[in-house]
Amino acid sequence: MLHNDSIVALATPSGAGAIAIIRISGEEAITIGNTVFKSIKNKDLTQQKSHTLHLGHIIDHQKTLDEVLVSIFKGPHSYTGENTIEISCHGSTYIQQQIIQLLLRKGCRMANPGEFTLRAFLNGKLDLSQAEAVADLISSDNEASHQIAMQQMRGGFSNEIAKLREELLNFASLIELELDFAEEDVSFADRTQFRELLNRIEFVLKRLIDSFAVGNVIKNGIPVAIVGEPNVGKSTLLNALLNEERAIVSHIAGTTRDTIEDELVIGGIGFRFIDTAGIRETDDHIESIGIRKTFEKIEQAQVVIYLLDSSLQSADGSLQMNQIEIEKIKNQFPLKPLLVVGNKSDLLSEKEAEHLKFEILNLNLISAKENIGVEALKEQLLSFVNTGALRNNETIVTNTRHYDSLLKALDEIQKVKYGLETNLSSDLMAIDIKEALYHFGMITGQVTNDELLGNIFANFCIGK
Amino acid sequence: MLHNDSIVALATPSGAGAIAIIRISGEEAITIGNTVFKSIKNKDLTQQKSHTLHLGHIIDHQKTLDEVLVSIFKGPHSYTGENTIEISCHGSTYIQQQIIQLLLRKGCRMANPGEFTLRAFLNGKLDLSQAEAVADLISSDNEASHQIAMQQMRGGFSNEIAKLREELLNFASLIELELDFAEEDVSFADRTQFRELLNRIEFVLKRLIDSFAVGNVIKNGIPVAIVGEPNVGKSTLLNALLNEERAIVSHIAGTTRDTIEDELVIGGIGFRFIDTAGIRETDDHIESIGIRKTFEKIEQAQVVIYLLDSSLQSADGSLQMNQIEIEKIKNQFPLKPLLVVGNKSDLLSEKEAEHLKFEILNLNLISAKENIGVEALKEQLLSFVNTGALRNNETIVTNTRHYDSLLKALDEIQKVKYGLETNLSSDLMAIDIKEALYHFGMITGQVTNDELLGNIFANFCIGK
Repeated sequence: MLHNDSIVALATPSGAGAIAIIRISGEEAITIGNTVFKSIKNKDLTQQKSHTLHLGHIIDHQKTLDEVLVSIFKGPHSYTGENTIEISCHGSTYIQQQIIQLLLRKGCRMANPGEFTLRAFLNGKLDLSQAEAVADLISSDNEASHQIAMQQMRGGFSNEIAKLREELLNFASLIELELDFAEEDVSFADRTQFRELLNRIEFVLKRLIDSFAVGNVIKNGIPVAIVGEPNVGKSTLLNALLNEERAIVSHIAGTTRDTIEDELVIGGIGFRFIDTAGIRETDDHIESIGIRKTFEKIEQAQVVIYLLDSSLQSADGSLQMNQIEIEKIKNQFPLKPLLVVGNKSDLLSEKEAEHLKFEILNLNLISAKENIGVEALKEQLLSFVNTGALRNNETIVTNTRHYDSLLKALDEIQKVKYGLETNLSSDLMAIDIKEALYHFGMITGQVTNDELLGNIFANFCIGK
Repeated sequence: MLHNDSIVALATPSGAGAIAIIRISGEEAITIGNTVFKSIKNKDLTQQKSHTLHLGHIIDHQKTLDEVLVSIFKGPHSYTGENTIEISCHGSTYIQQQIIQLLLRKGCRMANPGEFTLRAFLNGKLDLSQAEAVADLISSDNEASHQIAMQQMRGGFSNEIAKLREELLNFASLIELELDFAEEDVSFADRTQFRELLNRIEFVLKRLIDSFAVGNVIKNGIPVAIVGEPNVGKSTLLNALLNEERAIVSHIAGTTRDTIEDELVIGGIGFRFIDTAGIRETDDHIESIGIRKTFEKIEQAQVVIYLLDSSLQSADGSLQMNQIEIEKIKNQFPLKPLLVVGNKSDLLSEKEAEHLKFEILNLNLISAKENIGVEALKEQLLSFVNTGALRNNETIVTNTRHYDSLLKALDEIQKVKYGLETNLSSDLMAIDIKEALYHFGMITGQVTNDELLGNIFANFCIGK
């Protein structure tokens, strides 16, 4: 890879808008920009200070392509660490294309996905986990995933890993020193301190690894299944759960978000309702899911809402049948959080409601139609998520690659611990320590290779 | 309307991208920005120079929403003429929403469509026709419409109108002077010079009015109908015409334009193929359009391509039937440009081809499948458009509102001319001159009202 050529890309979403930003980075970025830009005050872009804005026109031969504002960032004081300019042009797709084509003719090349951030990493502006957080930040669509990405981007996670790595590195060098004096059988590394450090590292690694369960859920949303007999009001419940948020989202004109259909954010945590297509289409009437299909759906979910029609429970054998269904689900999925919800509570007398609550333990009575009890149900859903780590601003691991490296590092640390207990020779122990250091380095990017970088940055959008 | 409150909007297209721009304009824009922005160098935004960029974080209470770059523009040196800041944030829709919501809480309000440009107009940064050109520029999707919008935005059209208006105004004041000395029967305004001026204005107005025909076509694309018997290769021809351009357009990754389906740009002019859905779906096989439907299609078009299968012409009565059809079209639409095209020329011997050209005048022989003659066909299409005005960089009117005002102004000018010839009294002539001046003023916005402004800016996108 050539890393100082000038790359160009559209940095704003494609399509027409008021303005669009075209970004160029590379040693020649400002010089190239200067060849196509005519300042209204006849300024020479290459003579301007960093972090300044200049009004003028983009000229292709004699033809004026657009009136634009050009931002200048001089390396290393830019996102990529290189010379960078950003051209703020009118948001016509035709203009965007014409300017980019002109810049390509002037010696730029199209940037690959994530190449600006890759350069930022290669130039030491960010470590690898921070770079990965940039992509997470852009795709974050709720408070929790945003908060975690933000913390990671600002170096929270890296700092934690770097600290452990440094301490381990200190001990590694002492162990290496022992190897140099192997004949003399001396110990430079204090075994008690070393054991204490290994325990500490093991503790932190375990905590980080544990955090992945919640981190993963926060990043991808918690899958929720709504199951129940036909006609109990599943689609009405789904709408009641989703409606309020829809209203909030559509309130701010011009920021229509690409909503994931049937996603609900409660307390900053995303919940995804799975397999709702059937619910929506049939509006409960024709739908008739067998127990096998219900179980498949529950399998994919992390939380299950079992909905029943509370108004039918006194009338027929419905109560008993529901009790059997609920037992079946509990037996099949003993560890899966299950919310039993009785809909149409508005049709019940107080006495009937009490009776039902006695018959079915922990029953949540609601009326989806009248919007009674829906808020309480949301609180219940949220209560299944351990948001403690989030509230305490602890580092939460959301990235599968980091999770893998942490697992491998833990494995090596445990090997070292075992070696220490069994009086393994220093040279063998040094190998395991190096392995652990390697896995730490993989997270922050101190250890890296082209394939890894290729994989990571291929998932970025173009222009970032 | 309150015109100095601070308005906020997303200025980049909605959706996720690498970066997004949130724009605030108003007297308090920088002060409000300063309350939510924490510079990494602890700078106070209100103390910074215009046209500078500042890195920092957007903070909501203790929570960091994003790392951003803030651009500062101090009025009157901004697009709107007011204090303006632009926040360049990460392109997550969640972040965009959060920052806009925060700014709304801090005293901004959501901008209406086009309100930034409206303010630019009200603050004298642009005249009305320039403001309208901003919207045209954003929606321009080919070279010609872009060039016209650009010329108009840079004041080409306004200057032309303003010059005429000023000269007319001079004469008007001389005529008014005559009214003041009405008793004395003096003439301050030289009638010969005045007649000469009126002729010049009439000439320019007529030219501008004439230009609307081509201007309108350039703005909206030229509708082309492809008609012909089933199975002659209409869909193949359509694909052959469109394919090349598609390839060019998709070449630049990240700038996917919102193509108007079946639009082709030749020499910077857009051609729209109308009613091609049928052609595409049926791929010629089942399609069977009656003569009535064909005529309806031709009615909507400005150029007609009549396609026939040249390989069939010697075999059966096909030649004669085609000749009759062509005659019918010519009789029905004597002024509509008609291109007769013989497809599948690759199946013809040289002799057959010559015979056919003799039988059908001005026949264009092509093979859509083998891509023979398709380029020449494009040149033919372009030849129907009078691009002279475009080439000579003359002012071209594309806006229906301007066209209407020009027609009305011309009407008044002709009244004045008639008055001059019939020795109409100065006071009556002064009325007609004022009317003409009024219509000129409507174009540039020297004369305006809330309803007019409302109509114009309602068509803008939000954030512009």
